[in-house]
Amino acid sequence: MSNPQFLFRQTSFNGPSLLSDRREKVRRGTVKAQLQQLHETGRYDCFKLQWHPTYDEEYPWPVPKSLFWDSDIAKWIEGACYFLSEDYDPEVDAAIRELVSDIRAAQREDGYLNVYYTVVAPKERWSNIRDMHELYNAGHLIEAAIAHREYYRNDLLMEPIESYVQLLSKVFGPGKDQRHAYPGHPEIELALLRLYKATGDQAAYNLARYFIEERGNATGQDGLLYYDWEEKQRGDPHWLRPNHYPEAGSHWYNQAHVPILEQSSIEGHAVRAMYLLTAVADLLCLDKTGSNPLPESPQWYAALRRLWNNMVDKKMYLTGGIGAMKQWEGFGADYFLPQGTDEGGCYAETCASIGVMMLAERLLEVELNSRYADVMELCLYNGVMTAMNLSGTAFTYINQLASSDKDKSLRCDWFEVSCCPPNLMRLFGSLGGYLWDYGGGNGESFVNVHLYTTAKVDFSIDRHTVTLQQTSNWPWEGRVRFDVQTPPTLKTTIRLRVPGWAKGRFTLEPSCESVKVNETGYVVLHACYVTEHPTFTLQIGGMEPRFVEPHPYTNQNTLAVARGPLIYCVEDADNSWVVDHFKNTAISSSAKITEEKHELDGNPFVLLHLSGSERCLGAWHDKREGTEPGAEVVPSPAAVDIADDVPRDLVFVPYYLRANRGGRGQMRVGLLRKTKDCC
Amino acid sequence: MSNPQFLFRQTSFNGPSLLSDRREKVRRGTVKAQLQQLHETGRYDCFKLQWHPTYDEEYPWPVPKSLFWDSDIAKWIEGACYFLSEDYDPEVDAAIRELVSDIRAAQREDGYLNVYYTVVAPKERWSNIRDMHELYNAGHLIEAAIAHREYYRNDLLMEPIESYVQLLSKVFGPGKDQRHAYPGHPEIELALLRLYKATGDQAAYNLARYFIEERGNATGQDGLLYYDWEEKQRGDPHWLRPNHYPEAGSHWYNQAHVPILEQSSIEGHAVRAMYLLTAVADLLCLDKTGSNPLPESPQWYAALRRLWNNMVDKKMYLTGGIGAMKQWEGFGADYFLPQGTDEGGCYAETCASIGVMMLAERLLEVELNSRYADVMELCLYNGVMTAMNLSGTAFTYINQLASSDKDKSLRCDWFEVSCCPPNLMRLFGSLGGYLWDYGGGNGESFVNVHLYTTAKVDFSIDRHTVTLQQTSNWPWEGRVRFDVQTPPTLKTTIRLRVPGWAKGRFTLEPSCESVKVNETGYVVLHACYVTEHPTFTLQIGGMEPRFVEPHPYTNQNTLAVARGPLIYCVEDADNSWVVDHFKNTAISSSAKITEEKHELDGNPFVLLHLSGSERCLGAWHDKREGTEPGAEVVPSPAAVDIADDVPRDLVFVPYYLRANRGGRGQMRVGLLRKTKDCC
Repeated sequence: MSNPQFLFRQTSFNGPSLLSDRREKVRRGTVKAQLQQLHETGRYDCFKLQWHPTYDEEYPWPVPKSLFWDSDIAKWIEGACYFLSEDYDPEVDAAIRELVSDIRAAQREDGYLNVYYTVVAPKERWSNIRDMHELYNAGHLIEAAIAHREYYRNDLLMEPIESYVQLLSKVFGPGKDQRHAYPGHPEIELALLRLYKATGDQAAYNLARYFIEERGNATGQDGLLYYDWEEKQRGDPHWLRPNHYPEAGSHWYNQAHVPILEQSSIEGHAVRAMYLLTAVADLLCLDKTGSNPLPESPQWYAALRRLWNNMVDKKMYLTGGIGAMKQWEGFGADYFLPQGTDEGGCYAETCASIGVMMLAERLLEVELNSRYADVMELCLYNGVMTAMNLSGTAFTYINQLASSDKDKSLRCDWFEVSCCPPNLMRLFGSLGGYLWDYGGGNGESFVNVHLYTTAKVDFSIDRHTVTLQQTSNWPWEGRVRFDVQTPPTLKTTIRLRVPGWAKGRFTLEPSCESVKVNETGYVVLHACYVTEHPTFTLQIGGMEPRFVEPHPYTNQNTLAVARGPLIYCVEDADNSWVVDHFKNTAISSSAKITEEKHELDGNPFVLLHLSGSERCLGAWHDKREGTEPGAEVVPSPAAVDIADDVPRDLVFVPYYLRANRGGRGQMRVGLLRKTKDCC
Repeated sequence: MSNPQFLFRQTSFNGPSLLSDRREKVRRGTVKAQLQQLHETGRYDCFKLQWHPTYDEEYPWPVPKSLFWDSDIAKWIEGACYFLSEDYDPEVDAAIRELVSDIRAAQREDGYLNVYYTVVAPKERWSNIRDMHELYNAGHLIEAAIAHREYYRNDLLMEPIESYVQLLSKVFGPGKDQRHAYPGHPEIELALLRLYKATGDQAAYNLARYFIEERGNATGQDGLLYYDWEEKQRGDPHWLRPNHYPEAGSHWYNQAHVPILEQSSIEGHAVRAMYLLTAVADLLCLDKTGSNPLPESPQWYAALRRLWNNMVDKKMYLTGGIGAMKQWEGFGADYFLPQGTDEGGCYAETCASIGVMMLAERLLEVELNSRYADVMELCLYNGVMTAMNLSGTAFTYINQLASSDKDKSLRCDWFEVSCCPPNLMRLFGSLGGYLWDYGGGNGESFVNVHLYTTAKVDFSIDRHTVTLQQTSNWPWEGRVRFDVQTPPTLKTTIRLRVPGWAKGRFTLEPSCESVKVNETGYVVLHACYVTEHPTFTLQIGGMEPRFVEPHPYTNQNTLAVARGPLIYCVEDADNSWVVDHFKNTAISSSAKITEEKHELDGNPFVLLHLSGSERCLGAWHDKREGTEPGAEVVPSPAAVDIADDVPRDLVFVPYYLRANRGGRGQMRVGLLRKTKDCC
């Protein structure tokens, strides 16, 4: 029961921190700015079911421009509800009430609820489950309804949604007259499982599990894979496919090429993959509670671990970004991780990194292990946080690690396909749920602390209230103070993550000899320690800046600078001499990094200084054009020609701070590694 | 008038050499082996216009499997005619006669001549110029007819072809009732220009020039780009496109996104680009002769140079291979040149490197400059020659620089789309034409020698015969002896290329102080020297092995070994310990390379020895799975961890010799560069 969206309500960010500041900006800036975008783009009124000029516009087959509008509204409602509970706003409240009223009125008599298939193409319902996001939209509506009910304590949105889910349960399933389908863009699976957890609706659980288990069944519908079958029904030639499909029939784009249990590597569209696996992890969480045993659960967990490992070890950027391939917004070959489109690719969509966080959070519940929390924190502070400016009003959809003249490091207020901005809003809204999980019973309780910040959690076990307050200046300092209030009759265990980059270094005050980092990567404080020391301090070591490299097989030959969970970058705003997007800027791992405390618009951060140089291309510069594809290497030169290098004092800022200060949009994370040839 | 297909007849390979050996293998092995393939696959009989089971088979839209059959037959006829003149073979002669008789009988009354659109889809003629290779097939038939007439001295094939060209000239052109089209796969342009040169058919010239000048006209047909217009005619939705199209409407795939004169970089399908630019160069050659002035010829040459330079400097592999992208068999972004598909791509199709040779050969006539001949030689000895085994009976279509488990370094007897094998056959058949160009008049003559081997050329100027014999053991030795016979009344100038890798080093014997490499990269021997020294010897320097590197922006961080025009590779046949396709094998440019004379099946070659090592992945090896995407770099380690490296004695063979000795298909050209971090 520990999904972020449930837990956040018991967590309060009750002091200054980087995370609370980001939440504050979303609450104050993003919620209203996006409401305005919804109004301006026509989304706000779409459930009123009137014709909109966008519906007439040309679009690349088969996805009309308005296809995702339902989900944009739904995500905004969900996110807005999270923030309303903390800070009532009459304008936001009124908007939600109007939207809910529109949604209720938009529902068809049989429970169906989708704008495009009601207004634009009413006869084509369920005709293209693979591409048309019908079930994806339904999923987000379900999530909105859950958040709405939590805040409003009424069923005004839940009622139509429950009735829509009843319709879906009739339409999809293993029965003879049911469609043996599963959504092209997963999302409804995890939404249905949230619904089950919120309401106990067993039909919702069953439908989610059906979607997951049926996926990739090569003979699921009349002896065909469902997507092939529905293509035949539509009369499409089998080579007709969306623009981003690598080729006709490449069902790995949707993770539907084989059943999930048989998938050996993570493939295709990154967001789809993350949402799908999050739901698989949810099934395993529910299996663990015993409420809904999952047959073959060890195999399901093995599949999750296999795909997680493939992703983290071979298909993830240093920033936690995933997806090198722009064409299908997804995973490329193992170790294919160029930093920018001018070097062959880099997509790293915001929603994909949010998806990694969702998956990691569920996996932590399946098996407490710091590897999941490490990656979750990496994504949060880098791949995700970099996608929003400091005021919470401008965004990035794609998060490259290096800019180029064609793809500068710049932000937009909104996007035509605008999944990312409202996704950031609901993520920050529910952020408290990612910090820790907790529970207990039978005279015991526990809190597993995954992320450090300043925040408090209260929860009840056996009618007792446990309160844990953490106070820190994370990620700038590694010191975290804890204050626990737990009744003497309850044995409370607290587990504290030691991040991988700390390499086991930590101190505890008051100290305790028996306390060690265990095999899960957590420091376990048993009830006796907690009872004796209701206030204690954890000092995480290894917070000084360090160099990190991507796997050698990536052929990047770069070094990046990191500090704690933060990955740093260079920008032209600080390094104004740059003209080549730092393509020739080189650093050495033996250089000394110095820290400087800094502030930007009231946001404190640690800036880093480091001496580097600009590579001199030497002979390559003087080469006559069009003569030969390579060049002779004179024995034993420097690979980076040190003698001719121009020294540069480099300034690094956290990657999440990029594109906040104007400039020319030049930015890079991994810099050329300064090496020389050796024998 | 110096296209290889015209010149080769005046050249004889009259002594042992690597090139004459390859030609011999093609003559003895390939011609018959491919004739057998034509029989076995049904191609041989296709002009008999009977139904073939292949016509019923499913295929990816819109290209049926038999679409290219006409061209396979045509290329075989062309190549076979080249060899017949040297070595009569009754079986080959009989086959050509039968095929020509079939082709004559297959022609429609109006001159139309295409198997697919006669047998399979007779009503769809000219309905898809973009994708259906109708004009491509016509082009190859034209080239076959020229070669056929040259050998047979009759018009049995030329007659129907001329009549087909007349039909084409009616159908395509600027007139109100003509189609303002140009072929999706260029080929016919260069074929028509060859036809013009062979027969003086001005209509052929005009049609070729129309195709070239009209290409990319955004409003060419009823205000639309022709391909968009014909799509509308067919009623295709505009997103319907062949599998290899990167996206709908991406006309850069066909080099038709803008007119050629406005193209700033080389894009799209590599073979198409080369065939197209070859024809542009042909137009410039004809402009130079004055027979057919080309308006804006400086702009056309500027476009050719711009695209050539972009290709050679930023989109060509060390082997002369072009095309990193498998999906569209063509060019990727600047400097995107991974060595193998497991590293993100590498196509380097055989026909594309043959196309580079064709283009270079024409450019040499437009402007004598060794850069064109250098690249031509690089392609010949590497990207092209590597595509055929030693016996001339097995081939590669794709020529990666590094194998992987998924794409091993292996050969096939034939391919479903089998453009490459017969293309190799006709290239080797006409190889004499690439060695040199020559001409003269008004008491003068010249020979420009581009490639060194053992061969003789005879040609007549002002009723005088000039004979030049070159004798060498190229590419194993840099010494070339020349014997000239030229009448005393004719002033004969001889220009000898000094390859770029020789860096200007050469000696001439007898020596002559005033002889230097001029700005074109050629040593010019004036008539006085030639008259005085009818026998002389050129010694090209710099033939010892050297290291070469791709451009630093390729992010390859590799070194390759070269010797003269040859690029070398490592194979598991010699380095049997390899298990990882040499992914971790590292070499240093300071290592000593030793040569060893060797032989394989009677083919002498120089084998190279070099000490390298296997990179130890160190900490990466022991890393826990799924923990983080990067790893910390401890200050000042070796980038390649030298301490733990396993030394390896490496054996290198010429890249063209790969995949001739069984083995496990493991091969690599560029090896990791052994470096260490520096400050």
